[in-house]
Amino acid sequence: MVSAPSQSTKAEPPSAYAEAGVDAALAARAVRGIVGELGGSSGVLDGPYFAAVIEFAGTGLALCTDGVGSKALVAQMMERYDTIGIDCVAMNVNDLICVGARPVSMLDYIAVDVADPDKLAAIARGLRVGADEAGISIAGGEVAQLGGIIKDHDGRGGFDLVGMAVGEVALDKIVIGANLEHGDVVVGLASNGVHSNGLTLARRALFDQGGLGIDEAVSELDRTAGEELLAPTYIYVRAALEMLGRGLVKAMAHITGDGFLNLTRVERPVGYVLDALPPPPPVFALIQQMGGVSIEEMFGVFNMGVGLCAVTAAGDADAVIAIAESHGFAAQVIGSVDAEPAVPRSVRIHAHGLIGEGTSFRRE
Amino acid sequence: MVSAPSQSTKAEPPSAYAEAGVDAALAARAVRGIVGELGGSSGVLDGPYFAAVIEFAGTGLALCTDGVGSKALVAQMMERYDTIGIDCVAMNVNDLICVGARPVSMLDYIAVDVADPDKLAAIARGLRVGADEAGISIAGGEVAQLGGIIKDHDGRGGFDLVGMAVGEVALDKIVIGANLEHGDVVVGLASNGVHSNGLTLARRALFDQGGLGIDEAVSELDRTAGEELLAPTYIYVRAALEMLGRGLVKAMAHITGDGFLNLTRVERPVGYVLDALPPPPPVFALIQQMGGVSIEEMFGVFNMGVGLCAVTAAGDADAVIAIAESHGFAAQVIGSVDAEPAVPRSVRIHAHGLIGEGTSFRRE
Repeated sequence: MVSAPSQSTKAEPPSAYAEAGVDAALAARAVRGIVGELGGSSGVLDGPYFAAVIEFAGTGLALCTDGVGSKALVAQMMERYDTIGIDCVAMNVNDLICVGARPVSMLDYIAVDVADPDKLAAIARGLRVGADEAGISIAGGEVAQLGGIIKDHDGRGGFDLVGMAVGEVALDKIVIGANLEHGDVVVGLASNGVHSNGLTLARRALFDQGGLGIDEAVSELDRTAGEELLAPTYIYVRAALEMLGRGLVKAMAHITGDGFLNLTRVERPVGYVLDALPPPPPVFALIQQMGGVSIEEMFGVFNMGVGLCAVTAAGDADAVIAIAESHGFAAQVIGSVDAEPAVPRSVRIHAHGLIGEGTSFRRE
Repeated sequence: MVSAPSQSTKAEPPSAYAEAGVDAALAARAVRGIVGELGGSSGVLDGPYFAAVIEFAGTGLALCTDGVGSKALVAQMMERYDTIGIDCVAMNVNDLICVGARPVSMLDYIAVDVADPDKLAAIARGLRVGADEAGISIAGGEVAQLGGIIKDHDGRGGFDLVGMAVGEVALDKIVIGANLEHGDVVVGLASNGVHSNGLTLARRALFDQGGLGIDEAVSELDRTAGEELLAPTYIYVRAALEMLGRGLVKAMAHITGDGFLNLTRVERPVGYVLDALPPPPPVFALIQQMGGVSIEEMFGVFNMGVGLCAVTAAGDADAVIAIAESHGFAAQVIGSVDAEPAVPRSVRIHAHGLIGEGTSFRRE
């Protein structure tokens, strides 16, 4: 196992995204610097996984932290604050399940320029909904009024919303893809749109470059542009726990920043060939067209319609799909494991002739 | 026990502070709104305590989150980033010990406008120093590049630094002042200046109103104004664990925002009479004078020289003081418990004729 702590970053790579204000190369360097300083932690599990695991009272305590990032700005543009808390819970609990942990509780941290009781209560309502869906408690939290640090937006205030979640996993049940084999299959569960990654690029493409209004109905979508981007991140916990409980999961990947490259956050340096992806929901084509974003960048930033992947033995795929569907998630086999790839820890997107490694895709 | 989750806020009360941009009444309302939405969590311990405790694998898992607040701005003014991580650890682990927990691990969350690898590595160095001092691991973390949310300051960038910490406490060893008695004494351990609360007010007083330069040597202090405000928050973990391990502690209070009113975050609605406070370090008089801050507000915002209080049976005070001193902290008895106060959950500051309740002090 890798010995560096699981410091991660929201920032993703190439050109359009860097122009939109998120410089991924810089962020990756920054994270490497942090890991260098913090290395040598005493966790049971640290490294590139979705959550850290430490031994606690004889079992595994899984820990992770993530925020909603610039999706907060979409909530502000729409002046709708009662769903962003769902995203905050989702970003954390969907990471916990990827190490095989049962999410238990979360703390919230909300930084604001000025504390607006109504807005904060609405955010809390979303947190409550998300926590109920994930089956966790919200044990506590912190509201920090930081007018010197958080930007105001057009007098509507500003905020940053972050969660820190804990889960439980037996030390001998940690899931990190240690036994992935050639021919194992990747089952993809549908996402609910962009979820909580790539929003800086999406906002720039749709609103700044595409000229869409936040409340504008878009013929390609069933909802307004704002509703589309604000749609809450799916919480996959109940489906995942059923898959895990039945021993069907060899690896699980929450598809966040870096898209399908999240599949490589496993112990074995396998590759993946994704040759049966579902058609991406229309919002992605819209972002690509309006923002002039290359297909390789789209796949390096967005989930492209798949929010969670479960890697499973080929014979278990039908059972995994059935569980996903019983919890309301469309699911299908989207590809398979290549145990001896030309490029270790790579992901090939067959339909577009792309290969990805690290944090970005390129044409093969 | 109170059933609301331990949502807290950094914001403190009255006039000068509100003028400085931190509106405490609004923040308190906001937190009540959040608690209203999130109430009914299933924790073993939730309420006004310093950390939540949930049952986990048969023992108590203590959870808390806190950030360094606007102390980050002082680091930026000084362009010195290698100690603020100590504050981040301190703000969290000093809370955990107040419920009797042994701090175990922490996650860091750093939001930046632009990821600056050198700055982030320096922040990580401080986190490492703090973690070592507290005897914890840093299990993981997150760097979020949020140019649309985090303010830049004079081209030096901006950041918010937050920790989420976990600790362990046996379910029958949780310390919340359940057995406080009349005549129990309060032992105060010296702080290292303002620590990580009240920085908005302090910066305004010293720099904006007092006209001090950040690098200006100040005759009343042994260091520059910037060095004084940036001095790292003391980490009291080792001393506290020794006191707790020897069964000497009936309640413990981390003196943060709301100052000595933190003593009232206990189960029994006792009052306190503080009649033997040490003279506050010179920085507090300087802030008071330059900022025209009332003494009641000073006590409602700052620690006034005492960073941690241990409430103990009168006969155990000498032992507690000896432990504090053996770990390098000046300590003395500063007051006592009034089991039947005229105002429940009040703190009287004898030398100044002040009485405090809730989040503020007034003249008696």
